Amino acid sequence: MAKKYLRLGAILSGVGTTQNAWRHPDLPGDASVNIDWYRENARKAEAAKFDLVFIVDSPYITPDTAPHFLNRLEPLTLLSAVAGATSKIGLVATLTTSYNEPYNVARQFGSLDLISNGRAGWNVVTTGLEGAAGNYGREEHIDHEVRYARALEHVKVVQGLWDSYEDDAFPRDKERGVFLDKSKLHALNHKGEFFSVTGPLNISRSRQGQPVIFQAGDSDTGRDLAAKVAEGIYTNQENFEEAKAFYDDIKQRTAAAGRNPDHILIFPGLVPVIADTDEEAQAIADAEFGKLDLKKALVQLGRPFNYHDFSQYDLDAPFPDVGNLGSNGYRGSADRIKRIAAAEKLTLRETAWRFAARPSPFVGSPLTIANEIERWYKGGAVDGFNFRISSPTNFDAFVNKVLPILRERGVVRSEYDGETLRANLGLPVPANRYSEAEEASRETALA
Amino acid sequence: MAKKYLRLGAILSGVGTTQNAWRHPDLPGDASVNIDWYRENARKAEAAKFDLVFIVDSPYITPDTAPHFLNRLEPLTLLSAVAGATSKIGLVATLTTSYNEPYNVARQFGSLDLISNGRAGWNVVTTGLEGAAGNYGREEHIDHEVRYARALEHVKVVQGLWDSYEDDAFPRDKERGVFLDKSKLHALNHKGEFFSVTGPLNISRSRQGQPVIFQAGDSDTGRDLAAKVAEGIYTNQENFEEAKAFYDDIKQRTAAAGRNPDHILIFPGLVPVIADTDEEAQAIADAEFGKLDLKKALVQLGRPFNYHDFSQYDLDAPFPDVGNLGSNGYRGSADRIKRIAAAEKLTLRETAWRFAARPSPFVGSPLTIANEIERWYKGGAVDGFNFRISSPTNFDAFVNKVLPILRERGVVRSEYDGETLRANLGLPVPANRYSEAEEASRETALA
Repeated sequence: MAKKYLRLGAILSGVGTTQNAWRHPDLPGDASVNIDWYRENARKAEAAKFDLVFIVDSPYITPDTAPHFLNRLEPLTLLSAVAGATSKIGLVATLTTSYNEPYNVARQFGSLDLISNGRAGWNVVTTGLEGAAGNYGREEHIDHEVRYARALEHVKVVQGLWDSYEDDAFPRDKERGVFLDKSKLHALNHKGEFFSVTGPLNISRSRQGQPVIFQAGDSDTGRDLAAKVAEGIYTNQENFEEAKAFYDDIKQRTAAAGRNPDHILIFPGLVPVIADTDEEAQAIADAEFGKLDLKKALVQLGRPFNYHDFSQYDLDAPFPDVGNLGSNGYRGSADRIKRIAAAEKLTLRETAWRFAARPSPFVGSPLTIANEIERWYKGGAVDGFNFRISSPTNFDAFVNKVLPILRERGVVRSEYDGETLRANLGLPVPANRYSEAEEASRETALA
Repeated sequence: MAKKYLRLGAILSGVGTTQNAWRHPDLPGDASVNIDWYRENARKAEAAKFDLVFIVDSPYITPDTAPHFLNRLEPLTLLSAVAGATSKIGLVATLTTSYNEPYNVARQFGSLDLISNGRAGWNVVTTGLEGAAGNYGREEHIDHEVRYARALEHVKVVQGLWDSYEDDAFPRDKERGVFLDKSKLHALNHKGEFFSVTGPLNISRSRQGQPVIFQAGDSDTGRDLAAKVAEGIYTNQENFEEAKAFYDDIKQRTAAAGRNPDHILIFPGLVPVIADTDEEAQAIADAEFGKLDLKKALVQLGRPFNYHDFSQYDLDAPFPDVGNLGSNGYRGSADRIKRIAAAEKLTLRETAWRFAARPSPFVGSPLTIANEIERWYKGGAVDGFNFRISSPTNFDAFVNKVLPILRERGVVRSEYDGETLRANLGLPVPANRYSEAEEASRETALA
């Protein structure tokens, strides 16, 4: 087995997922709709031996939505375009199970997987913004628990469709006129609680077998979904203790679901503030924070609560009781904000600053940051990090100053182990379910 | 206005849309799932100054489906990957309105349009194969008339979403912190018979304004849809007279729908058989025909009739009465087969050979073929052709031997007029409906 390294994803989020990131002087204002920006950054990440690039997503906007989400390329078309500019780095796109047909999802990710020669991954989400329903002809957003039950069935259907063709299904014998061995083509004939899909899918598997499944929901239900089907998790963690608790919880749930906990990799987001000295870095972090205006901080705070308008409350009173709000949206994030605001007795103003500004636990000199990353990794709080490219300068500093320290210590890799996403991540290639069944029945026959 | 030329599309259909095409010795057996094959052929088409490449599609297979459809890349991901390998040629993908959400369709084509810098086109189809329903959780395929009514509303919704942002919506003023001019963002708030879509879409327009709309349905209802919304039509015509009648009918319907008939371009498919002499070409065509076996011809004949099994009938009796069969599938093609078989008193065997082999009206020396193409064009039967790449040798012969004759005569272009699909085709850039309204109200105010 290949040596185990800290895994690295690069979140390509154009002008950035926060309200203010786009104002960085080095970031092109059109980055989120500029395919050249994506190609260039994916190539940089590949040169630095990142395992994957990662595209976040959401199918709903309001005029107050953060700039990146307002106007952006769609993840599947985007990564198909990036595929040709790269050759080894993984390509992970976020797509919701709530508003896409499993047959179409299976086809598009299967196609990306062939186009990239085995580098595709699907970050499964259920959509946290209730307004999305209106873009898909629904009066109401699907209920949180139902969304996750649907998501599980959706993923299973998609994985079933991906196995439609066994790997040796195509003799393509021009002489005899045999293109397909029909015995190697399998209809799914799925009839479940939420989906009925006959199949077969009209696309064969790539050399990594199937795209890698990621998951990003933080609620209890979200974690259970991950334990059942995810091979990677994208999460946000504020400090080592929180990250460690999350990590242990996920690995435990995965084992309880009967899976190998090494086959689910946990990637907290990483947005380091890097400068020559710790003091300089802290000053930069403080200055960034200072640029955020309260109005936008309140909008950002409202997002997990279905864009609830927090400007209606007294800013200096305790964080308001919003009841059940957020439980059908980004429940994990909403619950976390409620919990911390209560535990730390924060006012609304303090809560807005605290969560909207997303203070990074990684602020300091390259050495400080490398040490902290190593501490989280060796301390069993992460399998990797999903580094968010917030500016070209910050990306360069991370690649040229932080990674070399970690490389020297053997924490991150110097060369790719292979050319597929599964090879990068040390994940097994899933056997085709039908080939497996056939082999098993052959073994039984021989026994 | 730019000079008018014969328009040229190149159908990139991998191993070919017929049962036998894949056996051509020069065609890679995996062409339909090999992105390099698509990139290479798109580049060749661009070097030859084709207006566009064209991807056919269908979301349903049976084990007897023709090889290309069995196992193939998905059109949107495919063309996003081709975008980076080309810079001027248009990229037209087929997608069904029957099994895709308008919001997702608008996003993905809008994204392809930005990725390709204004070269996207959408070939709108409604899916002719009833079995597709089973891949999308439906007991029955949507009724033919309903499919087309839905398609019209679907396209209108997508076009409405594409206008969500006016072209000057983004000041991106980092100094003042103004990313978006909110007055230039518009929700659609569509509530129709089939779709409710609030919007706005989270992507801005490309420099060609909106992707170009194609249509490919041949039934009466299909033609009416084209007259209302299409800017290009992909069709199959067996001879000049048929093509001319179709052309006149479409232009008339378009004028009757209140549109400029010059803004709908008609592209019959073109699969020429080219050799040094007319005799040699005819011999090749006959040999191709000889390779087709009757069993596969019957499967292919059955396709427009929802894969009806024609092997159950007496081959030498008249083409059987299949009643209403096919009227909910590819109705235009099915009706045409019924009509011609009756008029020409064909047996089932004759009908199978006639339609499954798809005899080309373009067989001969380069000069013969160039003359025939010019005759169709100057005779007002076509605006262009959609050339199907059936083998590398045939593509090379067309590009190197036929096109130079047409170029010398000024029938096809020597250089691109611009860099968008609309510029290639001489189609206007649609004004944003909201900017238009604003300008109109300004004019009213000034009057």
